[in-house]
Amino acid sequence: MDAQTIQEMLKRSPFIEFLKLEVLAVDVDRQEIRMRMPMRPELERGHASNMFHGGPIASFIDTVGDYAVVLATDKPVPTINLRVDYVRPCIGDYIDAVAITRRVGRTIAVVDVDVIDANGKLCAVGRGSYGVPQ
Amino acid sequence: MDAQTIQEMLKRSPFIEFLKLEVLAVDVDRQEIRMRMPMRPELERGHASNMFHGGPIASFIDTVGDYAVVLATDKPVPTINLRVDYVRPCIGDYIDAVAITRRVGRTIAVVDVDVIDANGKLCAVGRGSYGVPQ
Amino acid sequence: MDAQTIQEMLKRSPFIEFLKLEVLAVDVDRQEIRMRMPMRPELERGHASNMFHGGPIASFIDTVGDYAVVLATDKPVPTINLRVDYVRPCIGDYIDAVAITRRVGRTIAVVDVDVIDANGKLCAVGRGSYGVPQ
Amino acid sequence: MDAQTIQEMLKRSPFIEFLKLEVLAVDVDRQEIRMRMPMRPELERGHASNMFHGGPIASFIDTVGDYAVVLATDKPVPTINLRVDYVRPCIGDYIDAVAITRRVGRTIAVVDVDVIDANGKLCAVGRGSYGVPQ
Repeated sequence: MDAQTIQEMLKRSPFIEFLKLEVLAVDVDRQEIRMRMPMRPELERGHASNMFHGGPIASFIDTVGDYAVVLATDKPVPTINLRVDYVRPCIGDYIDAVAITRRVGRTIAVVDVDVIDANGKLCAVGRGSYGVPQ
Repeated sequence: MDAQTIQEMLKRSPFIEFLKLEVLAVDVDRQEIRMRMPMRPELERGHASNMFHGGPIASFIDTVGDYAVVLATDKPVPTINLRVDYVRPCIGDYIDAVAITRRVGRTIAVVDVDVIDANGKLCAVGRGSYGVPQ
Repeated sequence: MDAQTIQEMLKRSPFIEFLKLEVLAVDVDRQEIRMRMPMRPELERGHASNMFHGGPIASFIDTVGDYAVVLATDKPVPTINLRVDYVRPCIGDYIDAVAITRRVGRTIAVVDVDVIDANGKLCAVGRGSYGVPQ
Repeated sequence: MDAQTIQEMLKRSPFIEFLKLEVLAVDVDRQEIRMRMPMRPELERGHASNMFHGGPIASFIDTVGDYAVVLATDKPVPTINLRVDYVRPCIGDYIDAVAITRRVGRTIAVVDVDVIDANGKLCAVGRGSYGVPQ
């Protein structure tokens, strides 16, 4: 499973296509994946604020976390639940997310996702539970 | 603060405008608010699935929860953190969310949000913490 | 499954025995259960504060939520994850918790738990995911 | 603020005294703290299971996270909310928790806590929000 394969898989979902995510790096051994989401007017919190709305940030976290599990399962996985903490405004032309799989159990996988903005600041952290296909 | 006022406030955010939310009901005394989000291809999980992607569901929960707090504060409030549990696929032409404020403290407000799909099924539940403006 | 049966089941766990929980009411149809936890010096946040520490509150929420699922499954269930929001100090001679099952799916159950102190104030809310035995 | 000082501060809370926590290491610069919780019959999930109940694990996470923030604030801080994911049974004579502060903002601090059992296995992860004293 490499970056190009993940990039192709993202096209299966119209909503993910809308987010225009770019797969930056994939580390199958560490079950770690990094993606970028570019700023666009539709993703802004306020008009011309250059600040991402929390909704796209949560969506980005959910998706990057999901594909970190896909590195282990080779199959898309359903999100069971998700926590997002917004620790600073996410500002700039893009944000990056790094997802690290903490545990892939028999039925549940847990993933941590850090979101860093274009200034290199940690601006949100996510933690998700995903269902492992049986 | 009535439904029409909230509907106008939603226009301040380009991302919320993208979601095309409709304010269905506002109950200021109970600090409860109900909104609807219509299905569109850009919000789908899979092509022609008629199933909402988890990202727009989380975004919807965040926004409806936020405006439940606005009923108490009269001012927009930042999301501190958010938990979303996906309990069934959200399927159909729209989903509705009902947000109920559980507590508005001096600095933190806690809100519960239930999401019901067009078949009347509970398909997601959210709980968010919001910062109360000082 | 009635209150007496649940009360007996609680004895299986030494830690739950330590909490000295009392089952107040069980509603199998609504998958709802109510328990009481009495104050004791070992559960206090500060010496002679008469305030419950957050740890026993989280433990209480976890347990009451667990047994709400047991009403549906008849078997003990593992906690997958838990969120607790502390909305006020929990003060007084006891706290009560009411757990309501929101969804029992094929593999995951989601439960909401409200904690009310002896003054009748909502002082904490919990939401847990539990694994449904296969 | 060193390990001995934190160890003394723990005595302020009867519930924390009950847990018999030992401060293993403190790194003020990284706002990181490590503690150990010994197994005792009262903390067991089942009789003679040698498995920690989830309640003491959540309590341990809450406390270690709290003191990671104290490294920055020098004052005890209230827990706003907490998420705990149980990823494996926590088995053995003790468990260790490492708390790392992810962000200390003006009003909110976010901390991650990993729990490792005596076999060196990650068995639970926590993430908490704490109120920063004004």
